[in-house]
Amino acid sequence: MKLIRFGENGAEKPGIQDADGSWLDVSTFGEDYDEKFFGTEGISRLRDWLSDHQSNCPVVSPDTRLGPPISRPSKIICVGLNYAQHAQESGMEIPEEPVLFFKATTAIVGPNDDLVIPKNSLKTDWEVELAVVIRRKASYVSEEDAMDYVAGYLLHNDYSERAYQLERQGQWVKGKSCDTFAPLGPFMATTDEISDPHKLPLWLKLNGETMQDSNTSDFVFGIPKLISYISEFMTLLPGDIISTGTPSGVGLGLDPPRYLVPGDSVELGIEGLGSSVQNVVSY
Amino acid sequence: MKLIRFGENGAEKPGIQDADGSWLDVSTFGEDYDEKFFGTEGISRLRDWLSDHQSNCPVVSPDTRLGPPISRPSKIICVGLNYAQHAQESGMEIPEEPVLFFKATTAIVGPNDDLVIPKNSLKTDWEVELAVVIRRKASYVSEEDAMDYVAGYLLHNDYSERAYQLERQGQWVKGKSCDTFAPLGPFMATTDEISDPHKLPLWLKLNGETMQDSNTSDFVFGIPKLISYISEFMTLLPGDIISTGTPSGVGLGLDPPRYLVPGDSVELGIEGLGSSVQNVVSY
Repeated sequence: MKLIRFGENGAEKPGIQDADGSWLDVSTFGEDYDEKFFGTEGISRLRDWLSDHQSNCPVVSPDTRLGPPISRPSKIICVGLNYAQHAQESGMEIPEEPVLFFKATTAIVGPNDDLVIPKNSLKTDWEVELAVVIRRKASYVSEEDAMDYVAGYLLHNDYSERAYQLERQGQWVKGKSCDTFAPLGPFMATTDEISDPHKLPLWLKLNGETMQDSNTSDFVFGIPKLISYISEFMTLLPGDIISTGTPSGVGLGLDPPRYLVPGDSVELGIEGLGSSVQNVVSY
Repeated sequence: MKLIRFGENGAEKPGIQDADGSWLDVSTFGEDYDEKFFGTEGISRLRDWLSDHQSNCPVVSPDTRLGPPISRPSKIICVGLNYAQHAQESGMEIPEEPVLFFKATTAIVGPNDDLVIPKNSLKTDWEVELAVVIRRKASYVSEEDAMDYVAGYLLHNDYSERAYQLERQGQWVKGKSCDTFAPLGPFMATTDEISDPHKLPLWLKLNGETMQDSNTSDFVFGIPKLISYISEFMTLLPGDIISTGTPSGVGLGLDPPRYLVPGDSVELGIEGLGSSVQNVVSY
């Protein structure tokens, strides 16, 4: 199943993308895709409901805005330097254990919303990432059990302001949390749609030119390890997002570095999780 | 006005602490102290409502558990090294601009709930802090306007696992986000209750012995600067928490360092914001 949310920013309604790629409005199911939904077996309840009601769900016009496929989670935990070549291009060591940082949930937008360069910012960069959505409360979860805690997967562009992240005193969160820095979607694919999340091609193009082109098979730490590891330091809630890190090819790693300017167009995708486009505008 | 929340963990009801120190149940006002409440002038609406209804509000038994005084916010932004002497004891420079980090909102508990030392943890430390609650959406706010974005203040113990924070690869969030690491309260005081938030004595005792004893007058960066600065990097939402940093006297700064063990009792307070006690237990 592919979950979508559509409509005006802040007033999105839940929907699904069906087998033909059409969008259906499932508002009458009566729930948003939030902590409560994921934490109460919402995916299987929605699946059951659809078996009776799908034919009556209104079709959503394809020119409707897509919002983020899930409602605002309690947190976005990002994994740093989780592809060996990206660690190298960033001038950092491959970590011995996962590097974690947070991204403010206020950064979340729809998959094709504009990327807004912050005021006075000169170093806004791109990062295509596979994001994992958590299905149930997770604390001290073993690697063996970890995949049972996954609700699904989605495409994420972990936009990063490199000066804010690296030159403005400590702690990366400062460069990760600006508004529009977390476009999610187009849809969240439930686990049954993705046969192996550790074998997904992912790519990103800037103005049509391929900048990132890799595969999640290059992860330093796989998803079971990440879930298990994170759950040692904090409790994951249903709907929480783990973003698994970006492969090489970011602007910071180019010689000379290259950053986004208004008018740029960023397109990215992951096999099985669709693609998104963000047009770059100034604040 | 002093806002409290009381009752079982996860099912807290809103209340107030009245002028006599009694707790009143204001559930019939019909709102929790959350983003929507703060963002829709909830404080003044509640004040108006109380002028008609306070005498009918049920008294809450003083042996009732207090929860965190506000509902789970979208984020907790913490400020690092915001007292000169604490920077020194941590072996770090006084920062030229604020150091920011996040704490998972899943760490929030009531003011007198147990502090649970994480599994296999040896370096759990205390940090008494003044926390600021945001009243309205804040993005690119000037220092001059910043205090108008404050809903109120509360006491926070920013518990920190120093090995997780400093010895487990990058980014402090790992040592700040364990369950029970953010006891909040006893109450949130609205701004009219605190004549000058930059002149508040704050203290912390471990098993009766004073460990921290300082004053918010020693801030490196004051509240207007913090709000303005943070709002440059991310949007603050109503109900969001800024924790303003801790003064010297944490366990990490002692020679030799001293960390919490099961059976310890941590008591802390800020003038005008009450006090709290956490008993330390193992996982």
